[in-house]
Amino acid sequence: MLKDTVMTDLEKLIASEAIKNLKARYFRYVDTGADMEKRATLFAPDATIFFPEFHSNPKSRAEIADWASHTLAGSVTIHHGFTPEIEILSETTASAVWPMEDRIYWTGDRSPGQMTSLHGFGHYHETYEKIEGEWKIKTLMVTRLRVIHTYKDATRPAVVED
Amino acid sequence: MLKDTVMTDLEKLIASEAIKNLKARYFRYVDTGADMEKRATLFAPDATIFFPEFHSNPKSRAEIADWASHTLAGSVTIHHGFTPEIEILSETTASAVWPMEDRIYWTGDRSPGQMTSLHGFGHYHETYEKIEGEWKIKTLMVTRLRVIHTYKDATRPAVVED
Amino acid sequence: MLKDTVMTDLEKLIASEAIKNLKARYFRYVDTGADMEKRATLFAPDATIFFPEFHSNPKSRAEIADWASHTLAGSVTIHHGFTPEIEILSETTASAVWPMEDRIYWTGDRSPGQMTSLHGFGHYHETYEKIEGEWKIKTLMVTRLRVIHTYKDATRPAVVED
Repeated sequence: MLKDTVMTDLEKLIASEAIKNLKARYFRYVDTGADMEKRATLFAPDATIFFPEFHSNPKSRAEIADWASHTLAGSVTIHHGFTPEIEILSETTASAVWPMEDRIYWTGDRSPGQMTSLHGFGHYHETYEKIEGEWKIKTLMVTRLRVIHTYKDATRPAVVED
Repeated sequence: MLKDTVMTDLEKLIASEAIKNLKARYFRYVDTGADMEKRATLFAPDATIFFPEFHSNPKSRAEIADWASHTLAGSVTIHHGFTPEIEILSETTASAVWPMEDRIYWTGDRSPGQMTSLHGFGHYHETYEKIEGEWKIKTLMVTRLRVIHTYKDATRPAVVED
Repeated sequence: MLKDTVMTDLEKLIASEAIKNLKARYFRYVDTGADMEKRATLFAPDATIFFPEFHSNPKSRAEIADWASHTLAGSVTIHHGFTPEIEILSETTASAVWPMEDRIYWTGDRSPGQMTSLHGFGHYHETYEKIEGEWKIKTLMVTRLRVIHTYKDATRPAVVED
């Protein structure tokens, strides 16, 4: 049964703070190497994650876990989120744009295209769903302002994509 | 008629969140190349904007739009805002200090002094006014901790200003 | 006498906002060279501060003031805090994890080990106490994801610690 409710300003602030905390955990889990099961708790079961630099279409939670655990093995990653724009759409849905900067340093042989590092700037475009009282990431997509790829082959210059 | 009102903590939190959202839109509009009319909606009509690196005194909204549309044509810019100090002074006035980092990469010939890039750190010092229910930037000034200017002329070394 | 109270969501939001403001002042005081007495006002009198890169155990407020006023003399520093995870534990206690990036540029001879610069990434792990109505930093510890140390001796290469 549909309820016709209007969220108060306080309820929106509480939701917004919870989503900021969710995204902060996302960054910490990724950068401190939390296991994939722990990371999965941040996402809705049917979440889709889309990194257009690496994939031609959005991936499921399990597909991204497989990809990341292979691609990022042995790397050091640093992901930072800046002041976001969060919109609380209803008691259980929200969206946000997060400015971001990420750095990946590979020491092993798992990097795409033999990269030694990636340094990028852009935005996360995300939607959220509140499931059993907890906000979860429902969709995540990255757009880029600029990325610098550096390669192992010393004769191959760094590639900047603006 | 003057009302003698005291803002509640909740009202201050709502104002603070609105100002964070305003500044996040400022960064996104600048970095994604939003048109100058859209950017102007973030400012009070009589707003002043002061970049002491480039100008000797504060400029109006229209003057900055003219200057930026010329100077930044063909550039990629990345502006990031960190945890701010926001002070809600009344129901319609507020101030903030925002730590910031900015990067500008020029590909064309519009940069001041034939720069190829600028990478800076500092603070935005801002005041805000709530006009017809919407918070707007009233004054904006940048102070610097450090800026690195890089030039096209290969014989001219990068200049660091601390 | 112990009161058995439960904080409301609003009280937690107010505490969280106050702690964000406290940490923003910490960054600003450090990077704009505020005097040590002013910086001390951000900390509880019995606060401990632990930089494991430089010290083998946590230091007192006075010990850190002595160390920093010597080590950072003549340097330019830039400290940034990103989206934090803040947990309000009670009306007078809280904890947080703050992702951080710091840059120190030395021009004088005070740097540890003749460094010219340090560029690091990591997290502040902090606890807070509300004392006479004001939130203060009670404990501060930095963990690192990556640090790059650059040295004056041109034959000594930059050292990266992941």
